Amino acid sequence: MIQGIGAAAGVAIGKAFVLPAWEWDVQDRRMEKVDLAKEFERLYEGIRTSKTEIEFMKNEIKETVGVAESSIFDAHLAILEDPVFMSEIQGIIERQYKAAEVAVKEAIDHFVTMFDLLDDEYMKERALDIKDVGNRLLKHLLGTPEITLPADTQPYILVAKELSPSQLVHLNPENVLGMVTMAGGKTSHSAIMARAIGIPLVSGLENKLDEQLQTGDLLVIDGDEGVVYLEPTQDVVDRYTEIAEKQRRRKEQLQLLASVEAVTKDGYKLRLAGNISSVKDLEQAIKFGAKGVGLFRTEFLYMDRPTFPTEEEQYEVYRQVAEKAGGHPVVIRTLDIGGDKQLEYFSLPEEENPVLGYRGIRISLDSKELFKTQLTALLRASAHGHVKILFPMISSLMEFRGAKAVLEEAKLDLTARGLPFRSDIEAGIMIEVPAAAAIADLLAREADFFSIGTNDLVQYILAVDRMNEKIAHMYHPYHPAVLRLLRQTVSAAKEAGIPVSVCGELAGDEKALPIWLHLGVDNLSMSPQALLRVKHRILNSTLKEGQAEGKHCYQLSTSEEIEAKLAGFLGKDPVLGR
Amino acid sequence: MIQGIGAAAGVAIGKAFVLPAWEWDVQDRRMEKVDLAKEFERLYEGIRTSKTEIEFMKNEIKETVGVAESSIFDAHLAILEDPVFMSEIQGIIERQYKAAEVAVKEAIDHFVTMFDLLDDEYMKERALDIKDVGNRLLKHLLGTPEITLPADTQPYILVAKELSPSQLVHLNPENVLGMVTMAGGKTSHSAIMARAIGIPLVSGLENKLDEQLQTGDLLVIDGDEGVVYLEPTQDVVDRYTEIAEKQRRRKEQLQLLASVEAVTKDGYKLRLAGNISSVKDLEQAIKFGAKGVGLFRTEFLYMDRPTFPTEEEQYEVYRQVAEKAGGHPVVIRTLDIGGDKQLEYFSLPEEENPVLGYRGIRISLDSKELFKTQLTALLRASAHGHVKILFPMISSLMEFRGAKAVLEEAKLDLTARGLPFRSDIEAGIMIEVPAAAAIADLLAREADFFSIGTNDLVQYILAVDRMNEKIAHMYHPYHPAVLRLLRQTVSAAKEAGIPVSVCGELAGDEKALPIWLHLGVDNLSMSPQALLRVKHRILNSTLKEGQAEGKHCYQLSTSEEIEAKLAGFLGKDPVLGR
Repeated sequence: MIQGIGAAAGVAIGKAFVLPAWEWDVQDRRMEKVDLAKEFERLYEGIRTSKTEIEFMKNEIKETVGVAESSIFDAHLAILEDPVFMSEIQGIIERQYKAAEVAVKEAIDHFVTMFDLLDDEYMKERALDIKDVGNRLLKHLLGTPEITLPADTQPYILVAKELSPSQLVHLNPENVLGMVTMAGGKTSHSAIMARAIGIPLVSGLENKLDEQLQTGDLLVIDGDEGVVYLEPTQDVVDRYTEIAEKQRRRKEQLQLLASVEAVTKDGYKLRLAGNISSVKDLEQAIKFGAKGVGLFRTEFLYMDRPTFPTEEEQYEVYRQVAEKAGGHPVVIRTLDIGGDKQLEYFSLPEEENPVLGYRGIRISLDSKELFKTQLTALLRASAHGHVKILFPMISSLMEFRGAKAVLEEAKLDLTARGLPFRSDIEAGIMIEVPAAAAIADLLAREADFFSIGTNDLVQYILAVDRMNEKIAHMYHPYHPAVLRLLRQTVSAAKEAGIPVSVCGELAGDEKALPIWLHLGVDNLSMSPQALLRVKHRILNSTLKEGQAEGKHCYQLSTSEEIEAKLAGFLGKDPVLGR
Repeated sequence: MIQGIGAAAGVAIGKAFVLPAWEWDVQDRRMEKVDLAKEFERLYEGIRTSKTEIEFMKNEIKETVGVAESSIFDAHLAILEDPVFMSEIQGIIERQYKAAEVAVKEAIDHFVTMFDLLDDEYMKERALDIKDVGNRLLKHLLGTPEITLPADTQPYILVAKELSPSQLVHLNPENVLGMVTMAGGKTSHSAIMARAIGIPLVSGLENKLDEQLQTGDLLVIDGDEGVVYLEPTQDVVDRYTEIAEKQRRRKEQLQLLASVEAVTKDGYKLRLAGNISSVKDLEQAIKFGAKGVGLFRTEFLYMDRPTFPTEEEQYEVYRQVAEKAGGHPVVIRTLDIGGDKQLEYFSLPEEENPVLGYRGIRISLDSKELFKTQLTALLRASAHGHVKILFPMISSLMEFRGAKAVLEEAKLDLTARGLPFRSDIEAGIMIEVPAAAAIADLLAREADFFSIGTNDLVQYILAVDRMNEKIAHMYHPYHPAVLRLLRQTVSAAKEAGIPVSVCGELAGDEKALPIWLHLGVDNLSMSPQALLRVKHRILNSTLKEGQAEGKHCYQLSTSEEIEAKLAGFLGKDPVLGR
């Protein structure tokens, strides 16, 4: 038994597949002075190809895993644009007349050695990123093929010195039971990806396992405890077989809940909807029992294409979603680009702090034709189902009025064109800017509904960018300030008699249920993957007890106390717990 | 009379000094292939020298004008690191074998033309920045001396096609009565600088004044109305002489108020303190009648030096400030780096959103020795005056408790060393993160005082980076959400019986006075330049009327209404108005 770091939860039993280290045979080639320009051309070509590939992987991950995970690749793109790294490479070519691949290899080695020397977990993780990007660049300069993983074989446990997010993209989760890496820890990009895909991972085994292990060896790994059993005894195998079997059964049990109503034991009914980015997502959500769509992120319609989608193209997608939702409400959020989301064909200014910048409704109100095209498509889809419109990043009454004015214009246009739409379509506000929460009573007088976006709301309230690994541990959704602003928003909605739902990640955390029961939020929208766990929690709770628990949390004064209390309430759930 | 854009307020009468356009005589020089590496070396050398110069100007402006204005130069530094601009230059050298200065000139022309073609004020301003930086780079490549302005002559009105911030740095405000530029508008970097230095500026006169004007011509300019009089009639001269004289007298009148108490007409007394960054600033503040220091930003002690300041070095400065304040309280804020403030010798991670990142107390709590050194120096200074300690960026009780624990350690050390300090030194919280305002009641139980930092607070509440020119117009300090969180914070402090002051820019805006009177804030701290205007407003107000006005603002629901109402209350003040 070898102790490492539990980087992604779950257990696995299976044969090891040991991935050969990604090493390049780089010959120390030197150029004639006259060929330097050509060598630069090769370098730039390699950089361009690498960028395209990374963009591609990023979009793949965004679709299949999530936006947060896809942003890992932004760090990789940034390396290819980093002036220090790039000028190091250029300097080696230029001054030492070395070939591009030699310069890249030397620059990687230089930075990796430097970062590794620092006794700083964060910088060590960055060294891995540089290696990953550098290897990709080398691949294009040397033409070596990508290392392939065994396909169509027995499922295996992947063992590697280190795993890069680029490698994980190509994994087939059906074949990979678990993963073991020598380098890395809980915060590595690969760990984040492993958790998102749901593959157990034990890391940090450097100098503990290195040489001994070979492809074909039997392994047991425990990603919760961070333990690897090499050549396990029958006893260990039996114990873990039982655990793995239990986990499998739990998964099946949960799936049975898809068709059950989300009602507490004492009869209080909640509506669980899905957060989606595509028609495919909606199908997934319905499979897990979603009652409609609480948040359709339309920006993905605008991505991976050369120009803005036309009204017809948008209408087609919105109509399909409206129809497939089977009469349940479908809340469609208008374009929310800016921040970390960019469109290739719509240039936004470079910003020091994009999250506090030009984004969401701020862009829409400045680009009225673009905005009106989307609203027109949305209105036309409203003839085919229960479509509601949600405006992102609203921070004042004036902005909301501005958005509604464009909606009215779109209605006039459609009337003139003689096309059908629901003239009383509901227009709501995404409560995600602290200002909106603080004036929720004023906004509730003019809005048809609220949808609380906890992700951005929490990050603004706490002034913590949760994508920033250096401070991500300070991102506390259960901060008392957050709970208070949630209460203020919900009260304002109830006072004004408008519906309010929660669609941020907090909605999909089953720990949060007592908060919703206490506040009286009965509309939750979440990623399809979270639906069944939350429903299970609801089915095993009572309104009365949950309300008391939620109320109790409001008497505590630190995130730490609140989170511990909620974890205690959740307790050892026979299905959700270990 | 020619109508332009009023870019910086004030009037001026004087002779024109027409600045020759900054044009370079760039010969289209081509290189042999073998000399390309040398050419790159020249380019990089020029970039390095330019960066050093810009850093130098930035620090100069930070000292003499302000942090916000100094950040203009960050945009310039960013251009020198911009991969698109740089790869354009490199590409021209590499592919066309052109000399570095030719490549730089062509790249500038390319981008400036491109940006100028866009019908977008923002991009046009960025074109000016590129020109400014490019010209600096050309200067280093061609060795042409900087254009010098007349010194030791009669004061003049500076006329130029366009003015760059780099040129403004070298102006002697005593000699420059006013400025006129053909290009530029209200939002150009030069306009921001002109307003900060207090020199009237009329811009946007392209095609209206170009050829006619010559050095020595008599001009009258009106920066409020955006008007230039070329060869003015005696009538115009007389009228503006009177206005200028009135403005001068107002300035004198204001200065007389330095020694007067800040008391309303009905006897309500406020305390006006200064925001400072150095001992020199304190002298300035005292000259304008400050009663102590409401905010000493200590980060400037840490800047422009190769290593951290020692305990002794810090103690020396804190002691001087404590003594010079003459018994008045001196609130010293612990190191607040991160965000847009960096130290050369303390490397911080590159961040996507530094304002939501690793900064202020978050860094101090991670760097305990560094933090303790500062607290020890502060404690020692407390033996020489009324020193209070303020912690920046506090967002939770746990952070504040963590900071106080380090303070207690520092006290133990000093006791062991036998050095004197005030053991009951007051430790307060900077309320600038929305979370802190939302849990002000919880924080008030454990803090000795609050100081409200409106600048960051407003930007987090509204999710608007005010340094981002694209959305700076959305930075509304008079947003109802801001007013509510201010009220919540002040109420919590009063409930707990601890003092509360306001030290953000809002405190120095005389329009805000009714808000403070209504909330019962009687401690305001502001930049020395704002002290006399605010005091004048106080002397001409009554508590009763002000309270009613402030209360009225709390019944309005948009920033626009509130700001208009406050401007109306301020009215045509005989000294403050035009």
